[in-house]
Amino acid sequence: MATPERISGPDVRIALIGAGTIGLSLAALHLTHLADASHLTIMDVRADLSSYVATVLPTYLPPELHKHVADIKLTSSVAEAVKDCTIVQESGPEDLAFKTQLWADVERLAPSHAMLWTSTSGIPAAQQSASMTDKTRLLVVHPFNPPHILPLLEIVPSALTSEAVVAKTMEFWRRIGREPVLLKRDITGFVAGRLAWALLREAIHLVDQDVVTVEQLDRILETSMGPRWAYAGPFKSFHAGGGPGGLAALLGNVGRTVQACWDDGGRVNMGGSWEAKVFAQTEEAYGRVDLGERDRANRLVLEAVREAKKA
Amino acid sequence: MATPERISGPDVRIALIGAGTIGLSLAALHLTHLADASHLTIMDVRADLSSYVATVLPTYLPPELHKHVADIKLTSSVAEAVKDCTIVQESGPEDLAFKTQLWADVERLAPSHAMLWTSTSGIPAAQQSASMTDKTRLLVVHPFNPPHILPLLEIVPSALTSEAVVAKTMEFWRRIGREPVLLKRDITGFVAGRLAWALLREAIHLVDQDVVTVEQLDRILETSMGPRWAYAGPFKSFHAGGGPGGLAALLGNVGRTVQACWDDGGRVNMGGSWEAKVFAQTEEAYGRVDLGERDRANRLVLEAVREAKKA
Repeated sequence: MATPERISGPDVRIALIGAGTIGLSLAALHLTHLADASHLTIMDVRADLSSYVATVLPTYLPPELHKHVADIKLTSSVAEAVKDCTIVQESGPEDLAFKTQLWADVERLAPSHAMLWTSTSGIPAAQQSASMTDKTRLLVVHPFNPPHILPLLEIVPSALTSEAVVAKTMEFWRRIGREPVLLKRDITGFVAGRLAWALLREAIHLVDQDVVTVEQLDRILETSMGPRWAYAGPFKSFHAGGGPGGLAALLGNVGRTVQACWDDGGRVNMGGSWEAKVFAQTEEAYGRVDLGERDRANRLVLEAVREAKKA
Repeated sequence: MATPERISGPDVRIALIGAGTIGLSLAALHLTHLADASHLTIMDVRADLSSYVATVLPTYLPPELHKHVADIKLTSSVAEAVKDCTIVQESGPEDLAFKTQLWADVERLAPSHAMLWTSTSGIPAAQQSASMTDKTRLLVVHPFNPPHILPLLEIVPSALTSEAVVAKTMEFWRRIGREPVLLKRDITGFVAGRLAWALLREAIHLVDQDVVTVEQLDRILETSMGPRWAYAGPFKSFHAGGGPGGLAALLGNVGRTVQACWDDGGRVNMGGSWEAKVFAQTEEAYGRVDLGERDRANRLVLEAVREAKKA
């Protein structure tokens, strides 16, 4: 948790719809800034919601926050969850019919000032708001998993979302120390996803062509662009690498190689013959990944970058 | 410098050909492990070599190593540089004629046991060794800039490079605490470059299409995949994200979106109309990047990952 505690103001009341991986991780994040854990409600229809939250949520939290888990309100009713809230964030199934119905219900059941956010990774707000009377209230707030650690939120309004709602949304996330980025327009997969999938496609190609193994490819990224991109994205990194002439000079020097790589870049597709090899090598290399170690590493890396920028 | 000092053994003597950014960064790296700084020779034909090395190299080094800079041997003669060395690493111009002549000379002038490495980012060892009598000695050792900080070395032998030379090369870099990765075959741009250029192509596309600005795109990567990939490359990261079913389960869930992103992914080319916009936004956003801050951040991030894995 990068943020100081209890900073979002006493009037913030959050309803989270859906207690999957993203929903619970958002709950962990909100526990760090809410004035009172009872201002957080988790709605899910699973029968074991209470024991599930009590068991899993503490594993996302530092010990000093464990005591607040019992104060979170749990319910299987959308009406109960949203009735007094100022924010509704939906992290339910990626199913258009489910979301369309949900937002029509929420619009009726929640206070008219409540902000309405969907964590969808692919269904635009314009489609989800189809059955709403007031389509200006809904927008995409797409977290990067796990959002209680990684700071990014991709903010993607529809053409109908009001500017005031967008501004309030940006302000909320900034206030609690996260990194909302407002996309200028909607695009399939949003930006983080598209970048990750573009790199993954080339990675799959290189393993499929037996240039490297899955494990070697990961190691290559972990010891080169990973550390670099944690501090500076591709444009800033390559601009720094180009000396006084910056990015233009760098691409002037290596442009022919870059174009050659693009020209014969991997064009693998989902369901291709690479799947058996890549899945087997990945399982063989990693089995079950230690999520505790991953989360610790991600936190320490984020702190390291902050430290370097302060010095 | 991740490595303990003075660990490579008293018999290691290194000749670096070319004192550009990569050559000087390699010099900084080697100063951390050589028993004696006079076992390092830098060869370059620039007239101001002595004042240039004395001015620039210390900026790559922790203060306690500054005193060793004066002990490095400097020369403008290849013969002088390589005569007693056990390793020759060439980081000269990316020019085939230059490299072909250089290696024919070096073969004649260096001890027969010396390892011969080229830092090239694109000219295969098989082409560079064309004028050598014994083509088994040369291979690519491709560092990631700046190599005194980022641990990766891509090791790319030609079909004629001897296995014994490859093994000795791997062993050297491992002994001084770096991360050599042996590619199973040569490919344009090697692996790190191809992955970076694949992501950059999509990044350029997203800026060109006005989905985000250069600065927003960088910020998105810095707060999502950057920190994640510093710890675990794409296969391990997505395998972790897929729960018990791993990578196969994850792609089973999101495969349709992934394919949709691939299908309309950016196909920009070098020299395209995007250049003016992207170069201008990059210069406007960053001007001159603070390389000291970048290097400090990269070091701290690498330390953070080591720390997380130890805990």
